[in-house]
Amino acid sequence: MELTVTNREENTTRDAPRMTLFHHRACPHSRFVRIVLGEYAIAVRLYEERVWERRNEFLLLNPAGTTPILVEEGRPTVSGAESIAEYLDETRGAEFEDRRLMPLDIGGRVEVRRLMNWFHVKFFDEVTSILVLEKVYKRCMTPDQGSGPVDVPAIRTARNNIRYHLGYLGWLTQKRHWLAGERMTYSDLAAAAHLSCADYLGEVPWSDYASVKHWYARMKSRPSLRSILADVLPGPPPSPDYRDPDF
Amino acid sequence: MELTVTNREENTTRDAPRMTLFHHRACPHSRFVRIVLGEYAIAVRLYEERVWERRNEFLLLNPAGTTPILVEEGRPTVSGAESIAEYLDETRGAEFEDRRLMPLDIGGRVEVRRLMNWFHVKFFDEVTSILVLEKVYKRCMTPDQGSGPVDVPAIRTARNNIRYHLGYLGWLTQKRHWLAGERMTYSDLAAAAHLSCADYLGEVPWSDYASVKHWYARMKSRPSLRSILADVLPGPPPSPDYRDPDF
Repeated sequence: MELTVTNREENTTRDAPRMTLFHHRACPHSRFVRIVLGEYAIAVRLYEERVWERRNEFLLLNPAGTTPILVEEGRPTVSGAESIAEYLDETRGAEFEDRRLMPLDIGGRVEVRRLMNWFHVKFFDEVTSILVLEKVYKRCMTPDQGSGPVDVPAIRTARNNIRYHLGYLGWLTQKRHWLAGERMTYSDLAAAAHLSCADYLGEVPWSDYASVKHWYARMKSRPSLRSILADVLPGPPPSPDYRDPDF
Repeated sequence: MELTVTNREENTTRDAPRMTLFHHRACPHSRFVRIVLGEYAIAVRLYEERVWERRNEFLLLNPAGTTPILVEEGRPTVSGAESIAEYLDETRGAEFEDRRLMPLDIGGRVEVRRLMNWFHVKFFDEVTSILVLEKVYKRCMTPDQGSGPVDVPAIRTARNNIRYHLGYLGWLTQKRHWLAGERMTYSDLAAAAHLSCADYLGEVPWSDYASVKHWYARMKSRPSLRSILADVLPGPPPSPDYRDPDF
């Protein structure tokens, strides 16, 4: 279950990556970090963690028992999508100048953090946590670990909720070139990570939200999303247009 | 419902505060911000928001519809406990030198963010969101707004969950002087804010967790917690020892 990737092919390095990401392919927070590392062309070793198994070694790294966790030689272990984003910005952001994913002005930082939190907490609670648990994780769990029949009313709730979020995204994408303003930021990557999970599962009604679809097509064409779009999750294959940037 | 306070009496200013906090007395995220502003002796105008009323003016400030929101003249509106913590650190942290609530070294920052997130997301999901909804907010809501009979199994779940969290806090407080290390940080304030909500409602089994109780007694004696400990919430009075620093 261990594999080494560089997320941007043009930057492949022969040295072993100094970073390891404990993640799950279906975890939207982990996908966010993979996309960020891809944008920054930082090589990473991926280790897929089944959090429901509650491995001792994993709980020692992150007592909260959640993915993602980023482990870098000689550095503190960092857990959680937003903390990892702040960590990468503080330790490497300056190298990337105009490709930096966190703005330097206070207004930009506030807006990027607001939207990151929107997706990593609100969208997660209301949409992705439900869909991923019901449609992916439950297939992998034993009854002791939380498996059981699919909670159909919960999926129905997530389907209603995603329309509200797509409406809000529609408003943003009609007003702005990228979600937080004129430049691509962590906000876009967070939204794309969560939408990619829902989209794999065929749960994004794109046709009703043209401007969101247009923005997501731009995201899908980025090399940083390539490994996400190649993912295969437990269960049925991805929705027909999941991998297609010109969907 | 508007009142002006300075959280530290010794620093009362005659000028009108430049900051307004939209908060609720029972909202642990709002309490965290009030404690932070108290530690930094920053005057603030408090406006109590009943988020379940979904006021239009409030939703314009924060489309997520959640407290807290910090509004400062001439600055971007900041929503959410963690974003407000980052904002205050970036705009004012340097003034406070050794009283700064966010460390400057990367290891310290990672640990403070981990524990802030632990309380603001995990403890909130598993304990405070349930207790505050069931025991406070539901008293204030109409049926349309989400009122209804108290969900007794949910409260039972929160009561089980808090023991796990107190166990973890016990481990931290036995090992460290403050939660994230040798200095008081945002982590302590986040934990105190959430515990204060549960404690008001009589839901903290202190006697089983001596080192946590000892740490919380130190927190309660800080002037920054004074206004929190004076709060009166809808419903029964606070638990007998809620206000007593020597409980």
